[in-house]
Parts: sequence; C-alpha cells; structure tokens
Amino acid sequence: MRVGLDVGGTKTDAVAVDDAGVIVGRLRVPTGWGPDAVGQTVVDAVRALGAEAGVDLAAVLSVGIGIPGQIEPGTGRVVHAVNLGVESLDLAAVVAPQLGVPVQVENDVKAAALGAHALHSGGSPTPGSMAYLNLGTGIAAGIVSDGVLWRGARGTAGEVGHISVDPNGPLCRCGQRGCIESFAGGGAVAERWGRRAALPVRDVFDAADAGDAEARELRAGLARGVAAAIRVLVLTADVDIVVLGGGVTALGDRLMTDVAAELSASAEASPFMRSLRLQERVELLPPGSPAAALGAAIVGAQGDATHDTEEALVHG
Amino acid sequence: MRVGLDVGGTKTDAVAVDDAGVIVGRLRVPTGWGPDAVGQTVVDAVRALGAEAGVDLAAVLSVGIGIPGQIEPGTGRVVHAVNLGVESLDLAAVVAPQLGVPVQVENDVKAAALGAHALHSGGSPTPGSMAYLNLGTGIAAGIVSDGVLWRGARGTAGEVGHISVDPNGPLCRCGQRGCIESFAGGGAVAERWGRRAALPVRDVFDAADAGDAEARELRAGLARGVAAAIRVLVLTADVDIVVLGGGVTALGDRLMTDVAAELSASAEASPFMRSLRLQERVELLPPGSPAAALGAAIVGAQGDATHDTEEALVHG
Repeated sequence: MRVGLDVGGTKTDAVAVDDAGVIVGRLRVPTGWGPDAVGQTVVDAVRALGAEAGVDLAAVLSVGIGIPGQIEPGTGRVVHAVNLGVESLDLAAVVAPQLGVPVQVENDVKAAALGAHALHSGGSPTPGSMAYLNLGTGIAAGIVSDGVLWRGARGTAGEVGHISVDPNGPLCRCGQRGCIESFAGGGAVAERWGRRAALPVRDVFDAADAGDAEARELRAGLARGVAAAIRVLVLTADVDIVVLGGGVTALGDRLMTDVAAELSASAEASPFMRSLRLQERVELLPPGSPAAALGAAIVGAQGDATHDTEEALVHG
Repeated sequence: MRVGLDVGGTKTDAVAVDDAGVIVGRLRVPTGWGPDAVGQTVVDAVRALGAEAGVDLAAVLSVGIGIPGQIEPGTGRVVHAVNLGVESLDLAAVVAPQLGVPVQVENDVKAAALGAHALHSGGSPTPGSMAYLNLGTGIAAGIVSDGVLWRGARGTAGEVGHISVDPNGPLCRCGQRGCIESFAGGGAVAERWGRRAALPVRDVFDAADAGDAEARELRAGLARGVAAAIRVLVLTADVDIVVLGGGVTALGDRLMTDVAAELSASAEASPFMRSLRLQERVELLPPGSPAAALGAAIVGAQGDATHDTEEALVHG
C-alpha cells in the first residue's frame, strides 16, 4: 500500500493505492497556511485515510507528496511555495518521524504528470511519452517518457510558461514580455481582466460570449497561449500526447474548442504543422481525476525503490 | 573499428574510429546529386578511408551515415533530402551489400548531437544532458541525455526551428509566421537580404557593421532567433548545455557576442531567466569539428548493439 498526497493552495487530496495500482481510499482535507500547518495537514490527511477511508495504515510502505513549489534536487525540501506561505521547509524530515514510513516530495505538476501517465496507460505497460500541461494560476508541464519523469539538469524541465511567443505581448510577472503564461496563466488573465469574480477565467469566457471586446481578446490570447505551449512540447520533446489539466481546464469544451481552432489554424497555414496532427494528440484530464495524488504515490514508491510495486503503480 | 559519414549538400565527411573512441582516419569527398550518386558517394568515401587514409577496412564492424532528411523510424530509408536531390532512398539497403557490414542511417543533426556529446564529454563518462543546436540553412536541434539520443514519438524531437516567437514576424517557408527559423535560419536570412553573396549571412553581418539599416535588423533578428531557441531548449528539456554548430557558427565571436547580448537582456529583465544562467550554458562547437561524422559512427555502433564498443565510442 502506498499513500499519495496533493497539497494544494486550499485543499489537500489524499489517495491510498494498493500493490496492483488500484486506488482503495481517497479523501480531501483543507490545507493549512505556513510551514507548521502544512506539515500538520500532511499528517492529518494520512491519519484520515485510516480513520475515515478505512485504509490499513500499518500496510502503508511510503508516503509521496506533491506540492506547488521548487523541490531541492535529491531532498525532501520545498522552497518558494508562495501559495502555501512556505519559503523553505524540509517537509520529508518534518513528517516522516510522525508517519513512520519513508516520505518523498515532488513538485505538484511533475507528480501530476506521473499520475496522468499512469491513468492514461491504464493497466497496460505502454511505452511512449506524454507531457502533462498544467493550466492553473501559472503554466508548467511535466514530461514522462516510458513511465519515467524527465527531470532535466536543474529542475526547470517543462517550464514552458516562460517561453516568450510575442515580443509585444503582455508583461509577465517573471519580467519578460509575451510569455505563454502572460497569455494563458489563470493568474495573468484574472489580473488583466480586473473584475472581481470567484472564477475569473470563467467570468472572462462568459463576458466574451456576451460580446465584451476586452474579454474576447483575453479569451483568444488564452487559447493562443495554450496552443503555443502544446506546439513547444511536441516540437521540442516530441511527446506522443499532451494531456491538459489544472483549474482552468474546468472550462472543458469551451476551452478545448478555442484551443482546437488555434491548432487548426496553424495546421491550415503549414503543411509541416499539419503533419504533426496536433489536434489528435491533445487530451483533457477527466474532471476530478486524482492525477496529482496518484502521481505522488508513485513518487513515494519510486523513492522507496521497491521496483515491482513501482512498476505496478506506474502501469496500474 | 567503426566508420561514420556525414553526407552534406556539397561534401561528405568520413571518419574511422577505433575501439577506444579515437579518430584514426578522416577525409572529405564531394557529394553526388540524386539517389544513385548519393549511394555511390557513401561507398566511395568508405573505400577512400582505406585507400587514402590507411584505414584497415577489414576491421570495420559498422558504417553509420548522417544525412540531411527525415529517416523513417526503424529503417535505413531517408526521405525528403531535398538538398541532395533525394525524395526517397533506402540508403542502408543500397550500400550495405557493397560495404559488407551493417549500415545505420540517422538524420544529420541528430548524429551531430551524439558526436558533439562524445566530443564534449572527452574521456570521462559524464552523465547529464546536452542539446546540439544546428544553425545552418534551417534550424534544428538534437537532444542527448546520458549519452542517449532523445528520439521522441514521431521523429520531430528538437524541431525548435518551427516554434513561432512573434505573430507579426516574417513568413516562414513552413507557412507559419515568426518561426525561429524565419529569423535565424541561414536560408531565410539570405532570402530576405536578397543580395548575391557566396556567404550571405556573413555579408549581412559585414553590411550591418558598415551601418546598413536592413542588415542591422536582419542581424538582430538572427541573434533573437538563436537566443529564443536556446531558451526553448533549456525551459522545455532543461539540458545542461546547448552546443551551437552548423554553417552559420563560422561567424564565431561575431555571432556569439550578439547572442550573449540577447540572453543578457532577458536575464536583466527577469530574475527567473537570470537564475537559469543561460550564458554559462551555451558553447560553440570548435570549427572543423567532425561532430556529425563521429556521431554517425556512434549510430552505427549502437545499431550494431556491441555494447562495450558503443560505450567506448560514446565516451571516447
């Protein structure tokens, strides 16, 4: 049995996965703010799997944690997790003594990439490659090849959000102009839209449908940014498929129709782009999919180096 | 002993590499035009290594060929090698009977990436990753991780030349606007410059130095395109280093100064880009380096699956 947690800005998803890769328990708890509360959230979530979801905690061999922030390579330390009020926290060292099992920590998008790959491959040990493109407040991707995460040299693999695709584009919070994230990041869109709304990107889509010119421009820019990220991932890493996930994908078909139109326009302009068949290679992660928590469970199993179980989880 | 050939548009480089990875013979022959002449060029080049460079052809275990075109996955067939007058040619099947050893065929940029990696790692078995960015008539890259070429799902890994970085940029021959290649490809620059010159990109640089406004714009665009390709490779694949090669790099420091200024400008604008230390991660392939032919020899050895020799060649 492996446990995986996806520590989000407001809520934490927890799953328990058996040795065959089947999710046998699943729940959600609110995430605390700041280093101490984040650590406590992790411990509480695991205990709740036992108390509320009926998971046999004595059978748990590892806990994997996905968290939005940079993970110092080779450690369980997360830094710059600004949405959690965490500047630097050795999360593995803090929670492992209380949990009594090995703990691995991974960036949440990278974990979700592993989880999306496992969900996509179903029970079959499919080789091949996938990029998971997370459309949330920011834009980032994780690349998985033959079941293994492409980590890169310094931990920036998949940071396609900060590739500039327009020298005259909006100023990005990173300091550059025209970054993919400045067009398609939920945070950037909300900031430029300026209206208060519980779901600002949805508000932009609604206003665009109602004919608002500024909203239509923002909406078109978002689709252009997402399409650009897909092209970058296929032209650079040549992944078989690009799976879209993250909060903005709650827009579902409204988003996908726009993105498909963008991809179709470049395919019409360019025989080379047409030959890539990009539209056939893009998929939406099913709503409510536990990709990130499942991926965290895989990270925990891989860190524990119990190879058979890792295989079962990756391909489960 | 392994032989590697780099079949270029006008000349073919040939090397013979011993089991320790040392280049023991090297020469250059003119490349013929069309399928028959290209096949003959390969056979002639190998025979010349014996006759003129003193290579013991009886000791040759494999021949690897790098060629500008698409290679059908899992075959020795090259298609769309337009610069060689070849629409489709099963090169391995044509030359292997005459050479009497296994023949492997690879795209020339991918072969050069393997060769650049071997040259860069010297005698030491360095892990890590590298992108080889070829600046020639077109722009393409090959990515090598831990000595292994990243082939991708459908053979387009490293095709960064056709990522658009400016929706108002020049029309690319691929049909899109503002592709990296439309700014930085030697062919695109020569076409927009329009003046007849033996070395059109050098002519642009000379005219820019002399104050010509159009030449200065073309030169600035070239540096912007190269810098964009470097950013894409590091932000997507997070390679340790990017090695620049290809005909346009004959401009040496004149090119590198412009590219460094572009990378420096984005580092000044963006703390995130600054943290990537891109300038320290870019290198120029030494002029006259036999990277592509050496890489082709590695491809031949890998295809032959003689693992010890492959290791020696990769790290030789």
